[in-house]
Amino acid sequence: MTSAAAPKKDPWDLPDVSGLTVGVLGGTGDQGRGLAYRLALAGQRVIIGSRAAERAHEAATEIGHGVEGAANAECAERSDVVVVAVPWDGHARTLGALRAELAGKLVVDCVNPLGFDKKGAYPIKPEEGSAAEQAAALLPESRVTAAFHHLSAVLLADPAIDEIETDVMVLGEVRADCEVVQALAGRIPGMRGVFAGRLRNAHQVESLVANLISVNRRYGAHAGIQLTDV
Amino acid sequence: MTSAAAPKKDPWDLPDVSGLTVGVLGGTGDQGRGLAYRLALAGQRVIIGSRAAERAHEAATEIGHGVEGAANAECAERSDVVVVAVPWDGHARTLGALRAELAGKLVVDCVNPLGFDKKGAYPIKPEEGSAAEQAAALLPESRVTAAFHHLSAVLLADPAIDEIETDVMVLGEVRADCEVVQALAGRIPGMRGVFAGRLRNAHQVESLVANLISVNRRYGAHAGIQLTDV
Repeated sequence: MTSAAAPKKDPWDLPDVSGLTVGVLGGTGDQGRGLAYRLALAGQRVIIGSRAAERAHEAATEIGHGVEGAANAECAERSDVVVVAVPWDGHARTLGALRAELAGKLVVDCVNPLGFDKKGAYPIKPEEGSAAEQAAALLPESRVTAAFHHLSAVLLADPAIDEIETDVMVLGEVRADCEVVQALAGRIPGMRGVFAGRLRNAHQVESLVANLISVNRRYGAHAGIQLTDV
Repeated sequence: MTSAAAPKKDPWDLPDVSGLTVGVLGGTGDQGRGLAYRLALAGQRVIIGSRAAERAHEAATEIGHGVEGAANAECAERSDVVVVAVPWDGHARTLGALRAELAGKLVVDCVNPLGFDKKGAYPIKPEEGSAAEQAAALLPESRVTAAFHHLSAVLLADPAIDEIETDVMVLGEVRADCEVVQALAGRIPGMRGVFAGRLRNAHQVESLVANLISVNRRYGAHAGIQLTDV
């Protein structure tokens, strides 16, 4: 006898990701470097990528905690999960050049396309809808998700801060892929990965950083997001 | 002797808004009704508006706590602050018809332009950029702000819930107007009004409701937002 419906899967039952190697493209920038540091500190194997292998090696040495550096292509090839933390204006070029190396990989886009003028930050809408959807268009053989948009690079980098109490909104089309990213976020003390929709709903998540910048300016803060009632 | 710079204003020093009358256009809908209930419970004078005065009277009686009902035009005229909680598809028509009555008023747009299909919710981008910017375009003599986008109508309506622990992101061009709205949000126990940018950054705040809907579906929650480090 079978029951009418399969039991609903516990959304907090996430996979063990401790054995995965995480690459961070743009790992010499503030955001990438901060994420690499936190993931390595949590025991994850991390390789940061840069256009120049030399710069990646230098940054990796500075970060410590076993982080390695490599040219972007090698970083992508050697990693199971590849975080994209490059500046928006190099996003399409960088990913387009790594299509082969990123085939089959779980890609986590955390790029926020923003413009700046005298009035502050404002969102840029990519033709594909969002940075994450641009990544998905450029990397048809990869499994593309989006996450880690709202983290303060200042807090990530501060060794005096042990816990970063924040929720990481994870977006993607395939539940198992999102769950890997959620589990990765959960490796960092204080952080929680929360599924927050499909890639077509990535633009507003990316753009919300413009609002966080306004908050930071008004309140002298390093604002992040938490979801209530979850 | 004068100091080189004026002392920076404390961003949490907000005005006393207890004497203001708050109108809620669309006050017979779930969101408007919930907000009217919470503001009235907090001691605010509240008038809900509807196209038909009769329906507004009925809903006001059901809400209780001194809430009054009126046709939209009278609601707008008699209020100091007017919350716009109408459905998106009636937004332009309703506001366009009330330009005279809303002249000089502080308008608080809380409309989320969303579409729905088999894959869930997705954002609709108004020609003006956002619902709030559409309101500003239609109401050139009003002071337009945007806020109260991420509140769960279910939690607002539940009389068993005393506190709603959430942050209300308040957007607008004029600091004093935003501060009135922030103070209004702060009248509701657990809520805090936080300045979160100019109206050109409203679209992503409105659209984020699509993500909250995904969160609610996955986790069986009534998700809201809190800002960390603020």
